Order: sequence, then C-alpha cells, then structure tokens
Amino acid sequence: MLSKNEIKDIQSLCHKKHRDETQCFIAEGPKLVDEILKSDFEIVHVYALASYLQKHAGIKVPFTEISEKELERISALQTPHQVLLVAKQKQRSTTFAWQQNITLVLDGIQDPGNMGTIIRTADWFGIKQVVCTDDCVELYNPKVVQATMGSITRVDVWYEDVAELIAHAKIPVYGALLNGENVFDTHFEKQGILVIGNEGKGIREQIRQHINHPVTIPKIGDAESLNAGIAAGIIMGMMTRH
Amino acid sequence: MLSKNEIKDIQSLCHKKHRDETQCFIAEGPKLVDEILKSDFEIVHVYALASYLQKHAGIKVPFTEISEKELERISALQTPHQVLLVAKQKQRSTTFAWQQNITLVLDGIQDPGNMGTIIRTADWFGIKQVVCTDDCVELYNPKVVQATMGSITRVDVWYEDVAELIAHAKIPVYGALLNGENVFDTHFEKQGILVIGNEGKGIREQIRQHINHPVTIPKIGDAESLNAGIAAGIIMGMMTRH
Repeated sequence: MLSKNEIKDIQSLCHKKHRDETQCFIAEGPKLVDEILKSDFEIVHVYALASYLQKHAGIKVPFTEISEKELERISALQTPHQVLLVAKQKQRSTTFAWQQNITLVLDGIQDPGNMGTIIRTADWFGIKQVVCTDDCVELYNPKVVQATMGSITRVDVWYEDVAELIAHAKIPVYGALLNGENVFDTHFEKQGILVIGNEGKGIREQIRQHINHPVTIPKIGDAESLNAGIAAGIIMGMMTRH
Repeated sequence: MLSKNEIKDIQSLCHKKHRDETQCFIAEGPKLVDEILKSDFEIVHVYALASYLQKHAGIKVPFTEISEKELERISALQTPHQVLLVAKQKQRSTTFAWQQNITLVLDGIQDPGNMGTIIRTADWFGIKQVVCTDDCVELYNPKVVQATMGSITRVDVWYEDVAELIAHAKIPVYGALLNGENVFDTHFEKQGILVIGNEGKGIREQIRQHINHPVTIPKIGDAESLNAGIAAGIIMGMMTRH
C-alpha cells in the first residue's frame, strides 16, 4: 500500500520544479525500466505490479508491490504499464569536450516527443553525445524519458552555452538550413558537429553564424517544413553512413 | 455565443464513432485552417476569435465569432489557437491505381503523431499517395490532422486491403525490414511502393511476402529500433533523391 505522501511525491516528479529539487526522475514500462536497472543510473525505488515482480525475482533495488489502481494514480502515462521507477538524475564530474566522431547540437527543441526520438535516433546511428541549449525541453521530462526508449542510458546529454562552445570548436560545424548543400550529395567528415534548430524558428543567429557547412534536405513536394526529428534523422543517417 | 448542443456536437468529433456518423472532422490553428480553407475540402463551419476574423475579413464560409473560453471548451488541443474548423471528410469517386512515382504503404501505424508526421514527410518528398491498412489510425483523428501540418490537403490517403492490392502490383515493392539491402547503397526505381510497418510488430506476413526489395537502415549504435516515422523519412528521402 502506498501512503498519500508517497503518491504525492511520485506525482510531483512530473513537474520540473520538483525534479530539480529532488534530482530525481521517473521512467515507466518494463522495457525502459529494465534498461535503466541495467545501466549506471542510481535507482531510488521501483513500484511494480505482482506480474512484473514475479518475472524479476531477486530484484536488488528497493521496491514496493502496488495494485493497478495505485499504478494508475502515480503513472504519467495514459495507459500505465506494469512498473514505474524513480531514479536519480546523473551528476556530471567531467567537463565538456567534443567527441572524436559526431556530436549533435540541439537549439531550442521544444517538443518532448521530438527530443526523446532524436536522442533515440542518435543512439541508433552511434552518436553518443548531444548538446542542448538551455531552452531545450528538459531531458528528465517524463515524455522525453519515455520517447528515448532506453537510449537515455547510452547517450550523453549536456545542457551548455552552445553559442560559446561552438565559437571555439575546431571541427566542421554542419547545420540544417535552407539553401545549404544538398545533404544527399554532401561529403561529411568523420568528426563534426550537426546543429538542428527549433521546430518553428530554426537555428538562432548566435549559433548559425558558426555553421561553416550548411546542409539542406531538398524539398520536392509542397509541405512547408519537415519535422525537426525527421530532419535530424535523415542528416544523422547521411553523416554516419560509412 | 455557442449553444450547449453546438459545443457537444463539436466535442463529439474527437470520437471516431461521431466522425463516421457525420463524416466531419476538426482542424485547429490559423496555419492549418487557412490551408484547408484554400483546399477543396467542403467547409462546414469556422469558429474563431475576433482576432482571427479581423485578419480574415470577407471569409466566405459560415462562421461564428467565439470567446477564448468557448474555444477552450471545443478545442482538442492543450493550447487552443485562435480558430477551429469543421469540414467534411473527402468522398472518393475514383478507384485505386498505383501512381507513376512512389506510393507509400503503411501497415498498422498506431500512433497519430507518427501517422500525421509521415504524411507531412511524404508531402515534402513529393509522394502524393499513401495507402493504409484498415487498422492504421484514422486519417481524421484530430491528432493526425494536426500533425500533417496541412499536408492532409495535398496527400491522397487510402484505406484499402493492402495485401490484396500489393499481391497484384507490377512495380517494385520496397519494404523496411531487418537484413535488407543497405538503404544508403540501394538503387531505387522511379516507380515503386515503400512499405513501412507497425511501430512494434513491423510488417505483417501477408504483406511482407510481396516485398521483393527489402531495405535496411544500418544500425551503428545500440538503440533497439528506430521510430517508424524516422525510418519512413530516411527511406523516402533516399528513394526520391534524384
């Protein structure tokens, strides 16, 4: 049985303010929870139905068996799914350095689904470093965590002063812009930065001025724009194809 | 002022049953509404704030000025945006035929955001025909309509017996499968079919057996899968790049 206070504490993790205060976040569903349990995230507590716990006998972290009704109350999902985990956000002990291969830079990505999907796609293409402007949606937003489908355990996501970092980068800076080189004909260096802009406004001037290789996904039909996640996916695919 | 019954009628269009009965659907926000007003969709009614109507003096369809409170009540969006339109679903008078260029086939796409984004991406790449299995999410679901960002006015979406159609197709059938040819090295014919499968289960056997050109987006990193919309976007880009 969960106490009222426990329920309130878990529910409060849907709000950034409480995530910041506690440095915790939630993740849900057996697939995602299993990946986080196997990762180096510090687990605070697992709340699970009996069916999940039966399959996870010998679970080595603090856990509570809960009812479906209780899960519905603490879940942030429309359709709760067996288990909810509370874990600690990662503390960083290193300073930022550009990776030897591709680093993805996100400028003002607002939609949590886009953000999570972009991190998942980066993980697919072996891109392990993503740097976000401070006004990107927060990594530990439950919708972002869910949309990463576990890639949150493998991709290193930084929130940094991107304009400042990029001004001093000594590697090629590619960016998704209008009137750039056709992305399907571009030769990409093995080490580089790819900048993807905000869903509506694109890449801000302070960052755009440092892009020395603008690339474009040619428009053949009539849609006004491509979704930021789709654009990121296509360019990441072309950058890592060798 | 909207009557209680008017409000109820509009709200009911969030449910498939009522959309089927009335053959109507809703679309919201000035950009999308403007595109539908310019298209050949039959408009039933526009419900708009004074601010929208001022910019659309001389609007030639039935309209009602409403308050922000009323818009909040009829809107399906978390953040209502100036205007909501009710239009008639398209009635089809022609029978299905494969297009001269690329036709996209969707097998059991469940997520409305994915569905709308895929239609928008097809539109970007000049793919004007999308054929869906009956168990794909419905085109006129409000979340699908919004996610198309206006491409619903330009892309022809069919719900058909896809396995039957594809069995008799005399053009190349490409499909996103594991262990196919590397999509970045594939030569695509100008006319063809691209099959994208369900988010979790992929492409069902009755359809998969007719795929004669399986293609794969190579996995370099560790994500278990790619989002269906991202996969569709990358392959559509490669198919239409000439």
